[in-house]
Amino acid sequence: MNIEMIEAARQRLMGHARITPLLSSPFLDEIAGRKVFVKAEVLQHTGSFKFRGAWSALSALDKDTLKKGVIAYSSGNHAQGVAFAARKHKTSAVIVMPRDAPKTKIENTRALGGEVILYDRANNESREIIGQKIAKERGLTLIKPYDEPQVIAGQGTVGLEVIEQAQDLNVDAKNLLVCCGGGGLTSGIALAAAAYSSKLSVRTVEPMGYDDVARSLAANKICSNDNSVDSICDAIVTPQPGDLTFPIMNKYCGPGLVVTDEECLRAMALAFSRLKLIIEPGGAVALAAALFHAGDIEGNDVIVVASGGNVDAATFHSALSRFG
Amino acid sequence: MNIEMIEAARQRLMGHARITPLLSSPFLDEIAGRKVFVKAEVLQHTGSFKFRGAWSALSALDKDTLKKGVIAYSSGNHAQGVAFAARKHKTSAVIVMPRDAPKTKIENTRALGGEVILYDRANNESREIIGQKIAKERGLTLIKPYDEPQVIAGQGTVGLEVIEQAQDLNVDAKNLLVCCGGGGLTSGIALAAAAYSSKLSVRTVEPMGYDDVARSLAANKICSNDNSVDSICDAIVTPQPGDLTFPIMNKYCGPGLVVTDEECLRAMALAFSRLKLIIEPGGAVALAAALFHAGDIEGNDVIVVASGGNVDAATFHSALSRFG
Repeated sequence: MNIEMIEAARQRLMGHARITPLLSSPFLDEIAGRKVFVKAEVLQHTGSFKFRGAWSALSALDKDTLKKGVIAYSSGNHAQGVAFAARKHKTSAVIVMPRDAPKTKIENTRALGGEVILYDRANNESREIIGQKIAKERGLTLIKPYDEPQVIAGQGTVGLEVIEQAQDLNVDAKNLLVCCGGGGLTSGIALAAAAYSSKLSVRTVEPMGYDDVARSLAANKICSNDNSVDSICDAIVTPQPGDLTFPIMNKYCGPGLVVTDEECLRAMALAFSRLKLIIEPGGAVALAAALFHAGDIEGNDVIVVASGGNVDAATFHSALSRFG
Repeated sequence: MNIEMIEAARQRLMGHARITPLLSSPFLDEIAGRKVFVKAEVLQHTGSFKFRGAWSALSALDKDTLKKGVIAYSSGNHAQGVAFAARKHKTSAVIVMPRDAPKTKIENTRALGGEVILYDRANNESREIIGQKIAKERGLTLIKPYDEPQVIAGQGTVGLEVIEQAQDLNVDAKNLLVCCGGGGLTSGIALAAAAYSSKLSVRTVEPMGYDDVARSLAANKICSNDNSVDSICDAIVTPQPGDLTFPIMNKYCGPGLVVTDEECLRAMALAFSRLKLIIEPGGAVALAAALFHAGDIEGNDVIVVASGGNVDAATFHSALSRFG
């Protein structure tokens, strides 16, 4: 992985992915005690940054490989990103999804043209093994959700954009907070920041009980979650950091931050009233850290990524009814 | 009023107002039967396009006049726009608001530094007379919500942006639908479209019972509402088109469209799930027309303005619970 791959991905994404805005609100600044700048990836195609990595990976395939179709496993956002990127590339996508994924994510993936195959998380079925088996049987190319160089390169374009936008707005930030699951987005952004912004430290934010990356960074080696707790942050409850993503994060990132589910819901309600944005729980962890963990953050300003907005009405309502 | 005033306003707004994105979703396209492009002015500072007109008007004042402070009357969005623009210009703003305006709009106007004076709509108090009286007593400059050239010029910058963005995205639209109250936004955009886009017809969209502009356009003269019905679209329930705005709309606009409150709520729920945007009822009328009145619209694609997002949690919940 290197910065040239991210620059090349940006070229391939041009005119296909959206350049999402960097937003702010004086009301959020007051809560955080510093200026907060929010990279609104919820406005990306399919409602999350995952479209970037999917487009990057598909557009890097040769014509014949692309024609045979792709396969992905995902709890929902990578699923939609790959399905939509495949449709736009006029090829097919098989998506392996857990049966208990949010209903809207499954429906949307189908509606975007993906052939959805459901598996049972409770039965300890492995999505990796299911994915690899179908890929082999049907001659499909597996697009992994994060441990895949061209996916990381695509997500890294968020970093290129946000660094340029922050310069335009004279943002004086030392920390760039990123919602972190397997680390594809974080490692891509960290590579971009290392190349173009010497003073910006990228920091992971995870939900309590799924702080594998924070612990791995502290221990200097890959640690896993025991998956014994529930979290509303379905988009980022991965078992452990990726083999490709962890070394990058370990080299470039500052200490990880951890937030509670309740802090996510509060951040979602504030994004509703102050930014006019829908953020899903897993996409709101970085904003939650900026707002409610100010003491653990450095710098006059702070930048956060709002990574996805694919939340169902009931969950969103629970945020508004408790904190709206 | 002329296009040069809008171009000059754009210069004054540069670096202060946001260039808001033009968004779309294949799911909305399917409902509308054509591609729908949404100008997301809900992402503007203070949550609506009104910040543009406010900034334009304040930045056009001479230094001494600006220093004495400004006054505005508004049900909420112009109020917040003027209060925030005044604070950024380091001057004071008095805002005359109806006592029954949405609570969040009153609170936000105060929090943005506005001195709020409430009046009673039910007692037939006239906000115009109250505003003019205080302006005279305290030496303040009145910033009218729409019948004011520099305000129209500021709102017209939405038109300049959207025309350029539509060209970048190869949008093939004949109609540009605008949420219409007094007509400041519509007339500004209509002037921009007349100058730069020969094939784009600007069309007003209003809530049922407040279709004064549609009737005025049809009658070729200013007609009023009888204000006998309720509407959830508080931002755009004006009594009649403005003396300045109507001649512009009458010259350039196509026939007006009218939508129901229920169609607004459905559009708000779809903006939640498909665009990840919060739109308030009055800001959703144009999207509602694109989605549910497709037969009254011309062109392969259609552009709509989502003009504001300042809605309270309870109203938003009613949209999601019924149509989410």
